[in-house]
Amino acid sequence: MTSVSPGGTIGILGGGQLGRMLAMAAARLGLRTHIYCDHPGPACDVATHTTIGAFDDMTAVTTFARAVDVVTYEFENVPLATAAAAETCSPLRPATKALEVAQDRLTEKTFVAGLGLPVAPFAAVASEADLARAIAETGVPAILKTRRLGYDGKGQAPVSSPGEARAAWTAIGGAAAILEGRIAFASEVSVLVVRAMDGAIAYYDIPRNTHSGGILRRSIVPSSLPCADADQARDIARGIAEALDYVGVLAVEMFHLPGTAAPLVVNEIAPRVHNSGHWTLDACAVSQFENHIRAVAGWPLGATTRHSDAEMDNLIGPEANDWAALAAEPGACLHLYGKNEAREGRKMGHVTRVRVRTGTPS
Amino acid sequence: MTSVSPGGTIGILGGGQLGRMLAMAAARLGLRTHIYCDHPGPACDVATHTTIGAFDDMTAVTTFARAVDVVTYEFENVPLATAAAAETCSPLRPATKALEVAQDRLTEKTFVAGLGLPVAPFAAVASEADLARAIAETGVPAILKTRRLGYDGKGQAPVSSPGEARAAWTAIGGAAAILEGRIAFASEVSVLVVRAMDGAIAYYDIPRNTHSGGILRRSIVPSSLPCADADQARDIARGIAEALDYVGVLAVEMFHLPGTAAPLVVNEIAPRVHNSGHWTLDACAVSQFENHIRAVAGWPLGATTRHSDAEMDNLIGPEANDWAALAAEPGACLHLYGKNEAREGRKMGHVTRVRVRTGTPS
Repeated sequence: MTSVSPGGTIGILGGGQLGRMLAMAAARLGLRTHIYCDHPGPACDVATHTTIGAFDDMTAVTTFARAVDVVTYEFENVPLATAAAAETCSPLRPATKALEVAQDRLTEKTFVAGLGLPVAPFAAVASEADLARAIAETGVPAILKTRRLGYDGKGQAPVSSPGEARAAWTAIGGAAAILEGRIAFASEVSVLVVRAMDGAIAYYDIPRNTHSGGILRRSIVPSSLPCADADQARDIARGIAEALDYVGVLAVEMFHLPGTAAPLVVNEIAPRVHNSGHWTLDACAVSQFENHIRAVAGWPLGATTRHSDAEMDNLIGPEANDWAALAAEPGACLHLYGKNEAREGRKMGHVTRVRVRTGTPS
Repeated sequence: MTSVSPGGTIGILGGGQLGRMLAMAAARLGLRTHIYCDHPGPACDVATHTTIGAFDDMTAVTTFARAVDVVTYEFENVPLATAAAAETCSPLRPATKALEVAQDRLTEKTFVAGLGLPVAPFAAVASEADLARAIAETGVPAILKTRRLGYDGKGQAPVSSPGEARAAWTAIGGAAAILEGRIAFASEVSVLVVRAMDGAIAYYDIPRNTHSGGILRRSIVPSSLPCADADQARDIARGIAEALDYVGVLAVEMFHLPGTAAPLVVNEIAPRVHNSGHWTLDACAVSQFENHIRAVAGWPLGATTRHSDAEMDNLIGPEANDWAALAAEPGACLHLYGKNEAREGRKMGHVTRVRVRTGTPS
């Protein structure tokens, strides 16, 4: 097992806010960072080194990978060829398998279901003609999603009745898709699990998440999830992490259907640090970002213990313009990502409101 | 009052670990940093921009200061001419007065005593011939310290009896000095106070500090200081901060003599974030580093509330080689500064052991 000593360099594919917070976590541990991204992003301001290059510029990618001690990534849509090229020069953690599974919704659902874990009913949709058959399989209401490159609600269209099939197909641009039966869930939660190179596993307390327009708005801990359900959620996440021989932080988003035979249903997985774990920066001894860095560097995991209750709200688009009021709010931990332009729907920062821990862990 | 908006740049004179942790705190708030230092240091790895230049290269200093929105510093021995040059181009916070006072031990003691605040007996020593008179004034045991450029126990020599005067004078290199009567203190504490541009003040809980060989080894909160003494300690620190019209984090080191007429005696002040406040990174909602940045950026102060008890130990020289064992210790928050060479006496990092808060604040 190759571990990276203090003074070594973590290479990060991607230059967004997740890369930024990973770079800061690495710096706490005396590690340097080298960002590879195709345009200057928030991570570049705090990284030790940056390479701006196209993800299909394999010469630039391999030069980058040779300059670092390990390569990780902050977004799941890293092209597989890019990851493979990097891996010829440096260890890649998490491994390519996690990317393969996570960047195609059909592969992901098939993989999770293949582990015997509960997922929503789903069917492949390769063409408009497929849709009627798929609707018959999943039932309605359902949601049509492109297999690839969807995020934050993009590339998705609802299908409430068979008559809406054509409109949905047009809305997603007629790309290879998956139809998923809608689940009547009570709430959404996510398990943030971290797995070390030696297979050691740790979990953060499970947040309850609220989305709006497909974008995460809020994560709250404790989640009030019953203990038995929380145990089951962790078991599901562990099953996925182990099946992927995963190293690093993995987020598994789940629907909660309390009191049913399968109270936790996997929605999607993200092979990276996750927005629903941002509260760990302010409410835990060691954040998700530091634990991801520890794991990919081959270090022991840090304590995931939560010392405070927390509510994390994303600051989306112009909401970040309220920074002065948020900075003045007692107990509010403000995080801004240094993005210049507060475009609609763009994650500009987040605020975590912490208070002395009262609830039981979930 | 000029405040720096997110996306703006904080200029920091000095590139050591304090600058590094300030830069990371600025990044949390969406602020960029620009380090000015005379050789590459730990802060450069995480800063957005770095200028390497001599502190007496006024062209480089003013070019740097023009490129940023506010200038602050991470060490008190910034030459006054450098600070003055920077201030012609950008606001300097804290202002030059704090540097003037803090970089000369005689000026500092005279200033604090002039505020009516308790200090150890002291006398100026301009020459070896002065020493006998000074010893008569302060009594023995005493300690001879150079007026300027001493830190971490350097430039100091004990004087246990008048016969040791010549040896002490030689030991400190015969520079302009101050003789300070030794105080029979029970413990050492420090007040970390932060003052905003509008005069708002906040305090962190007061740590009890242990030194060895003139270097801080450990800071513990809560300190078990009696409440009345803690109040007095805060009042002393506020008096100094207000007299300096201070903006930012100020550390005031004090001796504690419980049950005496003057239970708190000022030892020295540091016009900057301070090693005895490193635990605030892991035990408080908003760290000393973030609050310094908030203050100098003209932002409202953040909550200094402590959510956990904490023991901070410095990792000095080869102690940092134990990083792997420390990383594996549950509840230990490890911080390494990215310094390449673990030289004797060099602060390489620190570890803060946190546990759920049990004590009363001090």
